[in-house]
Amino acid sequence: TLSNKMIPALEQEMRSLFKANSPTNDPFYGMMQYHMGWVDQEFQPTLVHTGKRIRPLACMLSAQAAGSRWQQSVPAAAAVEILHNFSLIHDDIEDVSPTRRGRQTVWKVWGEAQAINTGDAMFAIAHLALSRLSHLNVPPTTVLHAVHRFDETCLRLTQGQHMDMDFETRDEVGVDEYINMITGKTAVLLSYCTEVGAIVAGRDERTIDNYAAFGLNLGLAFQVIDDILGIWGDESRTGKSAATDITTKKKTLPVLFGLERSAELRELYLSAPADRQFMDHVVATLDALGARQYASDIAAEYSTAALSHLKETKPGGEAGMALFQLADMLLQRDF
Amino acid sequence: TLSNKMIPALEQEMRSLFKANSPTNDPFYGMMQYHMGWVDQEFQPTLVHTGKRIRPLACMLSAQAAGSRWQQSVPAAAAVEILHNFSLIHDDIEDVSPTRRGRQTVWKVWGEAQAINTGDAMFAIAHLALSRLSHLNVPPTTVLHAVHRFDETCLRLTQGQHMDMDFETRDEVGVDEYINMITGKTAVLLSYCTEVGAIVAGRDERTIDNYAAFGLNLGLAFQVIDDILGIWGDESRTGKSAATDITTKKKTLPVLFGLERSAELRELYLSAPADRQFMDHVVATLDALGARQYASDIAAEYSTAALSHLKETKPGGEAGMALFQLADMLLQRDF
Repeated sequence: TLSNKMIPALEQEMRSLFKANSPTNDPFYGMMQYHMGWVDQEFQPTLVHTGKRIRPLACMLSAQAAGSRWQQSVPAAAAVEILHNFSLIHDDIEDVSPTRRGRQTVWKVWGEAQAINTGDAMFAIAHLALSRLSHLNVPPTTVLHAVHRFDETCLRLTQGQHMDMDFETRDEVGVDEYINMITGKTAVLLSYCTEVGAIVAGRDERTIDNYAAFGLNLGLAFQVIDDILGIWGDESRTGKSAATDITTKKKTLPVLFGLERSAELRELYLSAPADRQFMDHVVATLDALGARQYASDIAAEYSTAALSHLKETKPGGEAGMALFQLADMLLQRDF
Repeated sequence: TLSNKMIPALEQEMRSLFKANSPTNDPFYGMMQYHMGWVDQEFQPTLVHTGKRIRPLACMLSAQAAGSRWQQSVPAAAAVEILHNFSLIHDDIEDVSPTRRGRQTVWKVWGEAQAINTGDAMFAIAHLALSRLSHLNVPPTTVLHAVHRFDETCLRLTQGQHMDMDFETRDEVGVDEYINMITGKTAVLLSYCTEVGAIVAGRDERTIDNYAAFGLNLGLAFQVIDDILGIWGDESRTGKSAATDITTKKKTLPVLFGLERSAELRELYLSAPADRQFMDHVVATLDALGARQYASDIAAEYSTAALSHLKETKPGGEAGMALFQLADMLLQRDF
């Protein structure tokens, strides 16, 4: 399949960007290579699960479906994956998360100061990755367009993260604010992935906008589905215990819907200890309020919008088919 | 004078980049505006000392001296100043510094998590600033050149910061390593400022290289002079108490020179309590070893190289004169 060719090309491109230019920098690049899943804490080669590379795949498939060759979009695919990984390093510090993908996080191993700076380096490398589009005969104005939208996306990501942290300190969060937050935190990066594919392919503004809207709605649908699974998910399929998001008192979409509608739930959610009884009661209340149906409807709306924007682009050939499959894979989760 | 016109244009350009696009983002931009010195902790307008804007001035003067109009380089000048300020936000967290320019640092007011993310946002905004070169009829390939060198500079900055943090944990640091570190931490950004001026002006590679070498050597000379002042500076002129760098046991160039030459000093510097007697003894030992003369000679070498590269570019008109004056101002400090 296409992705069997794309992933190795992506990995090779990314690895070529993380080579130390002098022995002095070996440990510096070592920390980044550790985070990327290529080496262990002693900087020895290792093989760990590195994530599904959904974002770069969406980028390369979009480029080819929009009429380019996917190979021409590899620098952009590397840029989005490195940007995503940069944001994870900083998120892990901000959320005080000690582990990621079964390993200690960068800050946990080397301290916060080094981790902040290592993330900054990866932010710079993501930009350097993107500028390699110029080596592949992508016209200068097209590269500048891709770069400018990349930076707007970076800024929007930090706005989403700011809202997410802000919400944790607040008792009341509106559903609209929440959608605004997940747009920044999750959807804009996936939107950039599909958009930049169409940009690299040199398509017209309307087609580019449709690719962007496909990714944006796909990202929003994915996040809302994730919210549903975080409460009603089947443990054996999601790998998380059921109702995790309730025991950690996360303010996800179904919860915010319920909090807006029930003063009793609001009182309980903000103050009661998160024990088994709490969990059962909250889930039952959300069910009774129709929160699950509400969230499912919203997810379905975003899913429909995503697929309709994708259809409008008339995506071509094997890559076009693969884009529909990728969307199905992200959307057809058990809920 | 030229700088009296440049600074307001720069400030206006920068302020236009930090406007919230929705009320939700007001506090987010507020933190950035606070760091830039425009508002107080309650986000009310204030006037504080914002630094001398040496870097953007060097950029705009170089652009005009190289044959452009300085106005065309304002986006690049804004980009370097915002990049510098981004790095200060993260440095303050990494160094656990509670104050900067007489005010609490961003992390001290709003916490580390918000400060990391605020820095990231400014990193993105610095890039968005630079891309505005396209609005001023700078050709696309020239903008891409400026962007690519900007990102290489960003990466080099993080390498310098990594070395700086690494040195704090090590007993032995070589003079060569130290020069490598201050190149990344201080000199490459000033080098980019003068280089990008020549890039925007559309000059040939050799002239661009000379502008870059001017800024690089100027930055190195400035840092070494700063190291000398940190030990032998006149308190009434530097505003710091004499020998501050000794009482804080910093490993600056004169100290590293001394440590390489005296086992007794090495023993003392690494273990003795930093009291008044320690300070007097270390300074006397450094004097006896010729550390001050050594550092002064190195600073003079960099200064000479800086001015010679600048002369080679045959900088034009009032801006050219102002560049020599800027160099003099940075180099003719009392030591």
